[in-house]
Amino acid sequence: MLNFVYHIPTKVLFGKGQVSNLAREIKSFGGNRVLLVYGGGSIKKIGLHNAVVSQLNAEGIFFKELSGVQPNPRITSAREGVRLCKENKLDFVLAVGGGSTLDCAKTIAGGALYDGDCWDFFCGKAAATQALPLGAIMTLAATGSEMNGFSVMSNDEMLDKFPTYSEALRPKFSILDPTYTISVNAHHTAAGTADIMSHIFEQYFSNLTASDVPDRLAEALLKVCIKYGPIAVKEPENYEARANLMWASSLALNTMIGLGKDGGDWAVHFIEHELSAIYDLTHGIGLAILTPRWMEYVLRNDNIEKFADYGRNVWNIQEGSASDIAHKSIAKTYEFFASLGIPMNLREVGIDELRLEEMAAKAVRLGGATGAIGLFRRLAKPDILEILKKSL
Amino acid sequence: MLNFVYHIPTKVLFGKGQVSNLAREIKSFGGNRVLLVYGGGSIKKIGLHNAVVSQLNAEGIFFKELSGVQPNPRITSAREGVRLCKENKLDFVLAVGGGSTLDCAKTIAGGALYDGDCWDFFCGKAAATQALPLGAIMTLAATGSEMNGFSVMSNDEMLDKFPTYSEALRPKFSILDPTYTISVNAHHTAAGTADIMSHIFEQYFSNLTASDVPDRLAEALLKVCIKYGPIAVKEPENYEARANLMWASSLALNTMIGLGKDGGDWAVHFIEHELSAIYDLTHGIGLAILTPRWMEYVLRNDNIEKFADYGRNVWNIQEGSASDIAHKSIAKTYEFFASLGIPMNLREVGIDELRLEEMAAKAVRLGGATGAIGLFRRLAKPDILEILKKSL
Repeated sequence: MLNFVYHIPTKVLFGKGQVSNLAREIKSFGGNRVLLVYGGGSIKKIGLHNAVVSQLNAEGIFFKELSGVQPNPRITSAREGVRLCKENKLDFVLAVGGGSTLDCAKTIAGGALYDGDCWDFFCGKAAATQALPLGAIMTLAATGSEMNGFSVMSNDEMLDKFPTYSEALRPKFSILDPTYTISVNAHHTAAGTADIMSHIFEQYFSNLTASDVPDRLAEALLKVCIKYGPIAVKEPENYEARANLMWASSLALNTMIGLGKDGGDWAVHFIEHELSAIYDLTHGIGLAILTPRWMEYVLRNDNIEKFADYGRNVWNIQEGSASDIAHKSIAKTYEFFASLGIPMNLREVGIDELRLEEMAAKAVRLGGATGAIGLFRRLAKPDILEILKKSL
Repeated sequence: MLNFVYHIPTKVLFGKGQVSNLAREIKSFGGNRVLLVYGGGSIKKIGLHNAVVSQLNAEGIFFKELSGVQPNPRITSAREGVRLCKENKLDFVLAVGGGSTLDCAKTIAGGALYDGDCWDFFCGKAAATQALPLGAIMTLAATGSEMNGFSVMSNDEMLDKFPTYSEALRPKFSILDPTYTISVNAHHTAAGTADIMSHIFEQYFSNLTASDVPDRLAEALLKVCIKYGPIAVKEPENYEARANLMWASSLALNTMIGLGKDGGDWAVHFIEHELSAIYDLTHGIGLAILTPRWMEYVLRNDNIEKFADYGRNVWNIQEGSASDIAHKSIAKTYEFFASLGIPMNLREVGIDELRLEEMAAKAVRLGGATGAIGLFRRLAKPDILEILKKSL
């Protein structure tokens, strides 16, 4: 294992009814004037907006609202939030919704204490070294944004979608009540499960050996997704399925399963960001389509044991050679996503060959001068184009 | 899963050479006048005492020393530490050693801000609601004390050994450099491995179902112990073995694998505390001897699936009925401890039938008026006596 620093101070309040602690938590982190950030009407439909607003009012906490944050959140929403914070001297940002809402809230929290434009955090011009304190109430099990300092934002003018990371953007607390995820439809439940699994894959597949603690933990979380993803799709009200997925989602990307390793591969994420930047695709769907194709493409003799571990420990495939198990595990991955009802070809989600070349070219930008992304196996533009073609 | 709050703010600096950050971390948590707590001469032998003292001196950090903290740490040592803190107006406690040293340091940190006797935290008279900030440099992979608020102390006058818990006792930071554990001999490496595994078992075996996230994580850490315990015993200088065991040790008892569950069983720990309170036995050795006997005793038709899960997921026993797998998994547990060179009978460690009755009677005290301990299966005095007799 490589050296690392573990520091995950986010407080998580998990389970039914935890929203009753909201005002206490906001106050304990110094919040008096809150920006309430959310997306569409779903939090109103499930009564959560009302529960939050009435509690803030009852506890005498001043707040302003920013609604309409979209999936693949736009930098324009964040700019509007920053303006509200600055104009109203707000001192706390509360996100209520899924990962997109929270990522936008993070950008606002950073932007509120920054003099320039908050897109600077994403185009590499500046880092969000300080931020307003931030809390979250999650309504989707997917992004893991609730325990980490990542944010991913889209810029419509440039058709760009980029990530940023800062410890300052880590929420102070997150309220995770699985009952809020019961109204999530089958499509987004499936996409969320694929997103969680992709976060795990990105960290799991590495060329380091002897990283047993993080690798066994990663496999543990994958098994949870494989068991409960299909149950949540078929029985949306199954609390245990929703609860296990929600907690797995947080642990998959709170940095824990990457500690002691090399930072992860992340090529599938970078490629998917190009798909959803242009086509506004649901992130998890893009990941599910790309992942098995990426696996087949990167599989080589010198990393076959990693895939065999995956097959044995996650899919319980015990018979056959390492190569057999590796290939079977990739087939299992494809079949699993398909069984969740995910359309497994780009054409099915309205993406044809027209702009593959352009997306492949853009995907390698985060590799800088090297012209390649990915750590498990380096991928240059032609490699990515090949993966995209196989995904059609 | 049950509702829970996750809050594990301890910062962990893991890996080779992390001690170089010691003074910076102490200062960042407000430490200027430090009590340096350690045990015997082992930290001098490996050069760690010198590294710490010279860094404190170079960085102008005032310190006093308390040495001679023993395994099964005595409350008398903690009282002496409290006296030093109060007399010298110390504002930070630094533990350098194993779990015993750290548990003593925690007691000192709490006692320094408490007017009464620090044994009050253990006999139930008071809680350590506040404490001096505390840091640790660990030299043993075993207790997991480095990320939690537990402390276990012994009282020689009363032949008592009790635990206490407070969030205030959680270290602010812990430095975990696996190279410090390379000099740990085979006996204590084996005992440490058994201790880690016992912490996992105490939380894993519960009657709750659908607690997949914590249960799969627990199995992941057990697999790490089973792989690397024997390697560390045979090849003491194997860094990867030491590193994986050390990180598994922390994650086994930082409360994570118990979240969403019912608080754990802990009967084996309570029984073992009675053994080591009277006989000054190495804690992990006592746990290893008792565990398989406890497993056989508590196994019943209504919990057989839990043991079968353990057999399938940890020991990879796939063939046979649930009952077959359950019994085989217990036999595997026994054989594993024996394979580490642990004496697997109480007589071999100098304990005969003479005081079994007395220890069984004392073990149930933490059950209060119920007269029983354990949650997976309640154990009254006659049950404990039976387990002790089977362990002879």
